Amino acid sequence: MAGSTFGTLFRLTTFGESHGAAIGGIIDGFPANVSVDVAFVQSELDRRKPGQSKIVTQRKEADQVQFLSGIFEGKTTGSPIGFVISNEDAKSKDYDHLKEQFRPSHADYTYHQKYGHRDHRGGGRSSARETASRVVAGALAKLFLKSKGVSIHAFVSQVGSLKLTSAQIQTVNFALIETNLVRCPDPILAQEMENYLLVVKKKGDTVGGCVSCVVEGLPAGLGEPVFDKLHADLGKAMLSINAAKGFEIGSGFEGVSMLGSQHNDLFLPDGSTKTNHSGGVQGGISNGMPVYFKTAFKPIATLIQMQPSIDIHGNEVELLGKGRHDPCVVPRAVPIVEAMTALVIMDFWLRQQANQR
Amino acid sequence: MAGSTFGTLFRLTTFGESHGAAIGGIIDGFPANVSVDVAFVQSELDRRKPGQSKIVTQRKEADQVQFLSGIFEGKTTGSPIGFVISNEDAKSKDYDHLKEQFRPSHADYTYHQKYGHRDHRGGGRSSARETASRVVAGALAKLFLKSKGVSIHAFVSQVGSLKLTSAQIQTVNFALIETNLVRCPDPILAQEMENYLLVVKKKGDTVGGCVSCVVEGLPAGLGEPVFDKLHADLGKAMLSINAAKGFEIGSGFEGVSMLGSQHNDLFLPDGSTKTNHSGGVQGGISNGMPVYFKTAFKPIATLIQMQPSIDIHGNEVELLGKGRHDPCVVPRAVPIVEAMTALVIMDFWLRQQANQR
Amino acid sequence: MAGSTFGTLFRLTTFGESHGAAIGGIIDGFPANVSVDVAFVQSELDRRKPGQSKIVTQRKEADQVQFLSGIFEGKTTGSPIGFVISNEDAKSKDYDHLKEQFRPSHADYTYHQKYGHRDHRGGGRSSARETASRVVAGALAKLFLKSKGVSIHAFVSQVGSLKLTSAQIQTVNFALIETNLVRCPDPILAQEMENYLLVVKKKGDTVGGCVSCVVEGLPAGLGEPVFDKLHADLGKAMLSINAAKGFEIGSGFEGVSMLGSQHNDLFLPDGSTKTNHSGGVQGGISNGMPVYFKTAFKPIATLIQMQPSIDIHGNEVELLGKGRHDPCVVPRAVPIVEAMTALVIMDFWLRQQANQR
Amino acid sequence: MAGSTFGTLFRLTTFGESHGAAIGGIIDGFPANVSVDVAFVQSELDRRKPGQSKIVTQRKEADQVQFLSGIFEGKTTGSPIGFVISNEDAKSKDYDHLKEQFRPSHADYTYHQKYGHRDHRGGGRSSARETASRVVAGALAKLFLKSKGVSIHAFVSQVGSLKLTSAQIQTVNFALIETNLVRCPDPILAQEMENYLLVVKKKGDTVGGCVSCVVEGLPAGLGEPVFDKLHADLGKAMLSINAAKGFEIGSGFEGVSMLGSQHNDLFLPDGSTKTNHSGGVQGGISNGMPVYFKTAFKPIATLIQMQPSIDIHGNEVELLGKGRHDPCVVPRAVPIVEAMTALVIMDFWLRQQANQR
Repeated sequence: MAGSTFGTLFRLTTFGESHGAAIGGIIDGFPANVSVDVAFVQSELDRRKPGQSKIVTQRKEADQVQFLSGIFEGKTTGSPIGFVISNEDAKSKDYDHLKEQFRPSHADYTYHQKYGHRDHRGGGRSSARETASRVVAGALAKLFLKSKGVSIHAFVSQVGSLKLTSAQIQTVNFALIETNLVRCPDPILAQEMENYLLVVKKKGDTVGGCVSCVVEGLPAGLGEPVFDKLHADLGKAMLSINAAKGFEIGSGFEGVSMLGSQHNDLFLPDGSTKTNHSGGVQGGISNGMPVYFKTAFKPIATLIQMQPSIDIHGNEVELLGKGRHDPCVVPRAVPIVEAMTALVIMDFWLRQQANQR
Repeated sequence: MAGSTFGTLFRLTTFGESHGAAIGGIIDGFPANVSVDVAFVQSELDRRKPGQSKIVTQRKEADQVQFLSGIFEGKTTGSPIGFVISNEDAKSKDYDHLKEQFRPSHADYTYHQKYGHRDHRGGGRSSARETASRVVAGALAKLFLKSKGVSIHAFVSQVGSLKLTSAQIQTVNFALIETNLVRCPDPILAQEMENYLLVVKKKGDTVGGCVSCVVEGLPAGLGEPVFDKLHADLGKAMLSINAAKGFEIGSGFEGVSMLGSQHNDLFLPDGSTKTNHSGGVQGGISNGMPVYFKTAFKPIATLIQMQPSIDIHGNEVELLGKGRHDPCVVPRAVPIVEAMTALVIMDFWLRQQANQR
Repeated sequence: MAGSTFGTLFRLTTFGESHGAAIGGIIDGFPANVSVDVAFVQSELDRRKPGQSKIVTQRKEADQVQFLSGIFEGKTTGSPIGFVISNEDAKSKDYDHLKEQFRPSHADYTYHQKYGHRDHRGGGRSSARETASRVVAGALAKLFLKSKGVSIHAFVSQVGSLKLTSAQIQTVNFALIETNLVRCPDPILAQEMENYLLVVKKKGDTVGGCVSCVVEGLPAGLGEPVFDKLHADLGKAMLSINAAKGFEIGSGFEGVSMLGSQHNDLFLPDGSTKTNHSGGVQGGISNGMPVYFKTAFKPIATLIQMQPSIDIHGNEVELLGKGRHDPCVVPRAVPIVEAMTALVIMDFWLRQQANQR
Repeated sequence: MAGSTFGTLFRLTTFGESHGAAIGGIIDGFPANVSVDVAFVQSELDRRKPGQSKIVTQRKEADQVQFLSGIFEGKTTGSPIGFVISNEDAKSKDYDHLKEQFRPSHADYTYHQKYGHRDHRGGGRSSARETASRVVAGALAKLFLKSKGVSIHAFVSQVGSLKLTSAQIQTVNFALIETNLVRCPDPILAQEMENYLLVVKKKGDTVGGCVSCVVEGLPAGLGEPVFDKLHADLGKAMLSINAAKGFEIGSGFEGVSMLGSQHNDLFLPDGSTKTNHSGGVQGGISNGMPVYFKTAFKPIATLIQMQPSIDIHGNEVELLGKGRHDPCVVPRAVPIVEAMTALVIMDFWLRQQANQR
């Protein structure tokens, strides 16, 4: 209950700080007898890892996953899958000045208030480095779900004020996502975003962005009524990602200004709907239409600029952001969004199996 | 795990369908020796109940809560608090035609797909009537939190396109919320909203809206890192409310287009911050500033208009929405938002107590 | 987490004190589309209820269950099943003297220490009356399991020093269990037990006993490795019943003095085993053989004798046990043991469904 | 929910197979700011490790724990504590013949039935090697509890038919436990047990035993009513240890033949009791008296003798137990019993903190 476990039947528990010996996790509840494509898992990690392009942090981490259990002769055994990822390029000295200082809009202050004692190096436990463990578990879930006909595609739908329209988001050519550094499926907009990010980066500043995600192939019936609605758990999953500040499914905030007579999704005889303002979920349960949702990320708090702040004694200090940081979280957040989506869907998949008479 | 329980240490489990004998719930984990103001609980239910004004459904329900356990001589005993609310004005006949038909954008179709067998009367388990049980538990949590100096105020911040600005939301005079039928703290905007709702209602149509919420008096340190972040659990709680499609905390979706140098909340010597774009949460943990967030609700799907649809055999049918319904969910959603907020905060309060050395 | 919920996928949450308005519970996770035989549920309650024979307490309770939700047109809907049982024959005045006094070996003292404020009437929450709610949920689980070919039979295997041998326990004629007041399947021993209980009762004293239980028809594969072993959860379930002090499965404590070469259960070609010292469980997982186990119950603490004790101020007092009590818990514990067994098996059944690829 | 996590607020999740790369775990919910004595943790592992004496298996494992996170500058940070223990002396070839054969009374058959695919080497996940991870977590919990004045002592109370009496168990001199190889606090009996074990070992046979445990210094009030009774969770914890078949607290199975007038623990004015048949628990909640309980372990199933068995095709085979095994589980089970006890007590300790008003 200390917040390091996600899921009910398909559970990921993670450990590890940014500059400790290693990060890693335990996946419990993965069905037996599923072939594990380790190269695919690694390729997902590579999409998240630092240093992959000029618009992300230049920290160098191999982010090589090592599986320690639960896989035998290339297939899962139903036993928990333990894994570790070593921390290699930890330049902890870069953080010495932060031992007693709080960076604005970081977790430094709140961790200090909550725990009294914290590993300040590189953000410690609050670092987004923890999400690499989520990507490992998510990759395994994606493999399972793919075998069931379920696909998950996330992409950047907004950087600063540059954004895709709602209509565009529902008709994305997923093949274009990985054709550019930003991971936006509109090549022209992607180029604008990239240019903008380089400008922001040069100023030592950062900017926010949105990641959208589409789940296709999901059968009707997933999700649980009342509290564990499909979109409620998706929302929690997305909001648990570092820097996330908002979530919407289907028509979301735009739907607020619509009338019911415009918003209702009318049925076709096969049970599908003409429109999909619901985002594939009605009453918290999937209806067989594509599930799509969007997550808003704030600008990363670490600036390569001088900022006033305070230390643990309440003294005013000047902070210069050191280290190697991203100008915007969204390009690297794409595989994390997919991973968290896969964890949620996989959990509901198993729960739905349990529901059967 | 079938979705009827909310919370980890402070847990609400609910039961009941719209037109069954009764709804109710069990609250487990409420500390012993707390005085229970039953009249306050009832007054919270009255804020949610149907028939309270001309802009909500005219269904008549006393919504009288009856406590069955856990309270002895006016104080809690630490034992689970069981309670029931009878269903009285259930006009189940109004729903006979829906036994084999699916209303667009309702849960009829998805429940049918998931369960095969469903109580179709008044939406059954998917009816928002279930939220009355949440209001009971939330009222008890509010009483506890109030004794700790924590206050929770929700209010309507948008109806259709009529909305409060972000700046307004952070400077609300809470005393004005209950001065109008809409529960919007800006009396002039509230009147516009009311007028608009009457127009929409007259057309047999519905419209969406937003409810904002502000939590004050929360100490720093609440929330758990990584997966159970304070705003992640708040997001799940809000998205679990019927018709919710979006959630944002602090700057939310607006913050996406800001630069980090604008968005960062600079510290004052006492640890508070000059601005509050973070919405009172950093790294998933409260920082002592007010926590504020917004929930988007879609237009209610039930229209008093003719709509084309299908039945369980895939035949096309014409549906006329009967029954007595709200033109917009938000006036009655205000106490539900407060209740769910109280459940989340209460749970983290107890978890933080458990964290102590 | 306050202890009122049992199970993971099939969950029972109970509420209620002995002399409050009612007791009851919520069953969540019961599959949809299962016919509910309400008369069977009531008949199970009748096996547990007070006043049924001369060797149990003469308190009169109708113990009539009222279902409030989750069942529609005679079948489950997958929604939570709420139910209540009214408290009728509560002679609370009998307990006035206990408001500030602690009965020896009861929960009076520990509840006072834990909560400060308690409902002292009839034991309040610590009363075995709570188990009626378990019997309701267990009866529904038994109905489900019966449809899967799983049968559960509990019976009295010991009263005082009068007991069945291990060999007898594995070859019980279940049809004989309900032929006598004690619920012991050996009619001659049953008569001896009955005679003994009447002697004990006449002295105002009590005595301990054991209930054994046999589960037949369970397929191999139920139970989860490591922490949630089938017999570990059965043990917890049994030990959670009032007055239980011990649990053993298969050879149990007798097996300690055996050699491995005697104890090992050798396989037959079909995977069954020649002996069943394992009690149907190996490595925490069912092996397809009958699962059998035994629960030890201490003598009931309430005596109709004068006993020295203390009050909440530490003063010495003399207590005379009033009220109407059982001389031995085991005859009425039989349906409770079956119910808790059914809850455990049902939960693992659903978990095993979730495990599938 | 796949059984690899133990605890609610203080949670241990383990991974690892006997002959995989490593075993390990994640401890979540450990309070921040607690000094960690790594040498003590290692010394606890050394009490469990193979090869420590002539009456245990001669397999050689360093069992060196490596902490990967959650500890910074010698103190806990409140973040999850990840750790690994490498597998070194895995002679997997010894198990080649078992790939398709089922050893009697092992988990081979049930794992095969449940999962279809299993790591057969050294018992894989069902190996007691997994308990090393429990000892690590238990050692940390013991350190925390010691600082609160709570001590936990387990010891061997029975080997075969050689046993301590109930009276002896309640008056043990804990200082004698580690003075002999068997870990029995009666030196003369310990010598008899040792002699007997050497005889059994020489025959390639095994024998059962009991481990008793005493918890002192526990305040009144720990444990939760109804389902999560202190002794119910202790029972589950003990029964989850490999080879455990029985559990009893206080008077246990012996108490069955006592009268209530003998069994009741009469109060002294300070709230303590003259006798302690209850074993320190009344109504599932600690009463401040020592908590004592006993766990029965069956004879280890691996014999160094020829045994008939079957393979996965149902063919009859002859098995010769190879490898290096213990003649009796109890000497090495002592630290495991202490560890699991510490996990349970620690969890209830944190839960009780959460209960406060």
